[in-house]
Amino acid sequence: MRIGFVGLGRMGRGIAGRLLGGGHELAVYNRTPEKAADLVAAGATAAASIAMVCERREVVVTMVSDDAALADVAMRAGGLRDALPAGAIHLVMGTHGVAIVRELAQAHAAAGQTLVAAPVLGRPDAAAAGQISIVAAGPAGALSRCEPLFAIIGRRTFVAGETPEAATSIKLANNFVLGCAVEAMAEAYALVRRHDVAPQVLYDVMTDGLFAAPAYKIYGKIMVEAGYDQVGFTTRLALKDMRLVLAAAEAAGVPMPSASVLRDRLVGAIAHGDADRDWSVLAREQARAAGIE
Amino acid sequence: MRIGFVGLGRMGRGIAGRLLGGGHELAVYNRTPEKAADLVAAGATAAASIAMVCERREVVVTMVSDDAALADVAMRAGGLRDALPAGAIHLVMGTHGVAIVRELAQAHAAAGQTLVAAPVLGRPDAAAAGQISIVAAGPAGALSRCEPLFAIIGRRTFVAGETPEAATSIKLANNFVLGCAVEAMAEAYALVRRHDVAPQVLYDVMTDGLFAAPAYKIYGKIMVEAGYDQVGFTTRLALKDMRLVLAAAEAAGVPMPSASVLRDRLVGAIAHGDADRDWSVLAREQARAAGIE
Amino acid sequence: MRIGFVGLGRMGRGIAGRLLGGGHELAVYNRTPEKAADLVAAGATAAASIAMVCERREVVVTMVSDDAALADVAMRAGGLRDALPAGAIHLVMGTHGVAIVRELAQAHAAAGQTLVAAPVLGRPDAAAAGQISIVAAGPAGALSRCEPLFAIIGRRTFVAGETPEAATSIKLANNFVLGCAVEAMAEAYALVRRHDVAPQVLYDVMTDGLFAAPAYKIYGKIMVEAGYDQVGFTTRLALKDMRLVLAAAEAAGVPMPSASVLRDRLVGAIAHGDADRDWSVLAREQARAAGIE
Amino acid sequence: MRIGFVGLGRMGRGIAGRLLGGGHELAVYNRTPEKAADLVAAGATAAASIAMVCERREVVVTMVSDDAALADVAMRAGGLRDALPAGAIHLVMGTHGVAIVRELAQAHAAAGQTLVAAPVLGRPDAAAAGQISIVAAGPAGALSRCEPLFAIIGRRTFVAGETPEAATSIKLANNFVLGCAVEAMAEAYALVRRHDVAPQVLYDVMTDGLFAAPAYKIYGKIMVEAGYDQVGFTTRLALKDMRLVLAAAEAAGVPMPSASVLRDRLVGAIAHGDADRDWSVLAREQARAAGIE
Repeated sequence: MRIGFVGLGRMGRGIAGRLLGGGHELAVYNRTPEKAADLVAAGATAAASIAMVCERREVVVTMVSDDAALADVAMRAGGLRDALPAGAIHLVMGTHGVAIVRELAQAHAAAGQTLVAAPVLGRPDAAAAGQISIVAAGPAGALSRCEPLFAIIGRRTFVAGETPEAATSIKLANNFVLGCAVEAMAEAYALVRRHDVAPQVLYDVMTDGLFAAPAYKIYGKIMVEAGYDQVGFTTRLALKDMRLVLAAAEAAGVPMPSASVLRDRLVGAIAHGDADRDWSVLAREQARAAGIE
Repeated sequence: MRIGFVGLGRMGRGIAGRLLGGGHELAVYNRTPEKAADLVAAGATAAASIAMVCERREVVVTMVSDDAALADVAMRAGGLRDALPAGAIHLVMGTHGVAIVRELAQAHAAAGQTLVAAPVLGRPDAAAAGQISIVAAGPAGALSRCEPLFAIIGRRTFVAGETPEAATSIKLANNFVLGCAVEAMAEAYALVRRHDVAPQVLYDVMTDGLFAAPAYKIYGKIMVEAGYDQVGFTTRLALKDMRLVLAAAEAAGVPMPSASVLRDRLVGAIAHGDADRDWSVLAREQARAAGIE
Repeated sequence: MRIGFVGLGRMGRGIAGRLLGGGHELAVYNRTPEKAADLVAAGATAAASIAMVCERREVVVTMVSDDAALADVAMRAGGLRDALPAGAIHLVMGTHGVAIVRELAQAHAAAGQTLVAAPVLGRPDAAAAGQISIVAAGPAGALSRCEPLFAIIGRRTFVAGETPEAATSIKLANNFVLGCAVEAMAEAYALVRRHDVAPQVLYDVMTDGLFAAPAYKIYGKIMVEAGYDQVGFTTRLALKDMRLVLAAAEAAGVPMPSASVLRDRLVGAIAHGDADRDWSVLAREQARAAGIE
Repeated sequence: MRIGFVGLGRMGRGIAGRLLGGGHELAVYNRTPEKAADLVAAGATAAASIAMVCERREVVVTMVSDDAALADVAMRAGGLRDALPAGAIHLVMGTHGVAIVRELAQAHAAAGQTLVAAPVLGRPDAAAAGQISIVAAGPAGALSRCEPLFAIIGRRTFVAGETPEAATSIKLANNFVLGCAVEAMAEAYALVRRHDVAPQVLYDVMTDGLFAAPAYKIYGKIMVEAGYDQVGFTTRLALKDMRLVLAAAEAAGVPMPSASVLRDRLVGAIAHGDADRDWSVLAREQARAAGIE
């Protein structure tokens, strides 16, 4: 398939590499062209602009960092909406807000194009190995056309429905549930520390039983070791995600008190200088609130 | 070992049955004597009072429903504190508050007895099968003496430290983390439902990845099916637990905003008539808050 | 009228002094008898026990510090319930929980006595000057009999209904609303301080307009001046009050998220060493949460 | 002074009328020109565009409904930033977010113009009568030049500092404190209603004492009477304000848990169909949460 790809951060490069390795004809574009070098060496075409990366493509994937970047590549003059051929698909794989996905889907529809939202779950190394999961939503025909790509990119695809925001909401909900687990552990560790219990014991209890899952094993471990400088996901990015969650909730008429609690602790952690640490540093922020640290 | 057992609810009967099956000499007491019948048929002695169940015992286990019941069996005139032989152990296996465990430990110590707190994790059927987990704390010597019992009762013992409240705080923290997971799912399902996504899709995403653990599989499933009348743990009991968590947090100087969120939703669910449904009915309460139900 | 009075703290002495000055025959009792000295010098009789302070009384007032003290003077053997003549009134003027007021009202009713709840609003100096307000609830006949006393004690009486807990709930609700105002100012000051605004400007704006009332003038001023060591009402007592509010809310099926927010900040303030400062120190606790102090 | 005025809603017309009555030369612009009719009849000049309303003006006032409208009139091509003469002042009197005020102030400074933020407190009728209050911030020289206008517009001016956002933050903080009072009353009324107390009694207690101020008298009264269809300020607009508060708090690193509580109740009220009722309808939303309505 003739595919364009915009956004060559770590996730983007992993996914683009999979597509290229799967035998597709790939044109790539990144604001900083150096990041395209490895892909070009492996056979991709470097496009000099958004317009060029859209030329004669059946699908153009975007994997950009936030809503502002998505608006910039897709909605400004010369962006995807202007440049994408009629009938083509804009496959949005980044994590975005519900509002922009809805707005952009309408803009593409008006131009005879189709937006498919397909945010992913997993880390860059999983992306490079084709081991991420994909949550996809969009018109059924367009989803079918993307299926061969999903099969190369990830290990499993969850179909959320025909409206792209459905996939967005699932992705945000999943991140929110993770954030609640992190916050819950942060509070729980503070409680047991104040009762003179070694955090490791709570970790063992949790992960042996009801919570024998990566969310608790990964972030619970970092908290026990206070290893917040090995960063998987920063506090700052977590706050960005919670902002998207709260905006989606507000737009849909859903009070989400746990999201607000999480948001407040993230704001506090940033106020205390932990913006660029791993977001499990919420355990330290919670400890501060309890007068421990 | 000569063991006494007070509190023959479903959990209590399961544990007592294990002890009896393990070859120990067991005297049992329950306010409603009928519940002792099976154990007596299997060889246990029925005691007519707390005082008699304590006679010449090395260890007396209590597994009672709440702090008031524990105070009643242990602290009133003629209770365990009065009746237990010097040198004997009161093994507290129920889920109780930090304050009463601390107070009772001191009372026993003053009487030359020892309190070991050993709350358990697991359901009645797991108790009957010796498959529960135990979180134990108390003086090292007393813990050693209890170890053979723990080996019969459960599949794993986590030692939390030398002060009994340490075990209490771990148990409460674990229940709290579970409550947060339930509340998080409740909010997340409301969010995706309002975006017209079938809850099953979120369930699949969550339990395939970061949350592939019983907490999410069990309670997430009930929420998807709205099967709140198959009750594992009632809303009312969950509120009792959160009360214990908040009291422990307050006593220790730990603000726990997520516990308050959870508490408020439980209070709301009860106000809406769901006190005796499974506490995963929080998903319905959350849906009400979003104007869905 | 033949009146008994139990509890001679600062509020109690002020109210008892008014009753004595109003020409009533007063017997007084306090655990620490010295506090009765001035009243005895002014004509009151010192009673040596609860039983004696109840002898031949038409009304016995209690003004004690908390629920435990009320249970102690009223419900234990030899307490008011045992000693009060049939037909007499127990006038409960302290701030107590809904549960104990209800339970005690039933106990008195069973003994042919009547409980009237009449918590007061105002400081000790206002009590001594007869300038406090009274919120009263109880059976209509009993209320009528207390009216002459209320007229001497306070400047205004609000009748809340026939069930004593009604008055309790009003008093708790009023304290809660005050706590929310204090917490709101604490958060608001943090917000403007972080925008480099002198807190005095916000104080001027608030108290000139919508909030030209004592709640904001008194506590807002303390916050502007950081004068937390001049203590009107301690953080510790405020937490006790919020505990009563939350218990009343829980019993009645009312989620009160603002009470939980307030409670958490109070817990945090205490964890940071501010238990015995004026509760407006919440502004400092809030500043800590924002990384300012 | 030669003054331009953009935004002739009810507040804008009141303020513009005061300026005209004060003898200033006034050019006015509104998207819907009909709203300028009365002012033009009274001597103002109708401008056909933003550019024309800026022509040869010393000060141009904007009083527009939200950040999007402000961006539209001020920052797009042909807007105030482009059209205002060098040395002129953009006097921003609407309630806006901290971020846009900061950004716009910088844009004006780069163009040799000055932004003064001067949000106001009060209702349209007070504006027409010159009885509103003004919170002003901006460079000292510019503030001096605006003083004669403030003297005509309002009854009192509070100077918040030299950076425009300072005034913004005060205005938002004041609205937030008001919101907390409304939410507190909503929760308090639910509590006493569940204890069978007539809301009027709580109203009387509150407004007689600590809360004898407009915030409580106005909104407390509406709640007692359930008169939510007489709309002073809608739930929808209140949510917009809280969004601005939370954004300002996040940008400044201030967790504001009470703002989140308020936000969630507003979202819930809107989900239940009360978007266009007076925001004191939070009392009804809170009652719903308690299973009363």
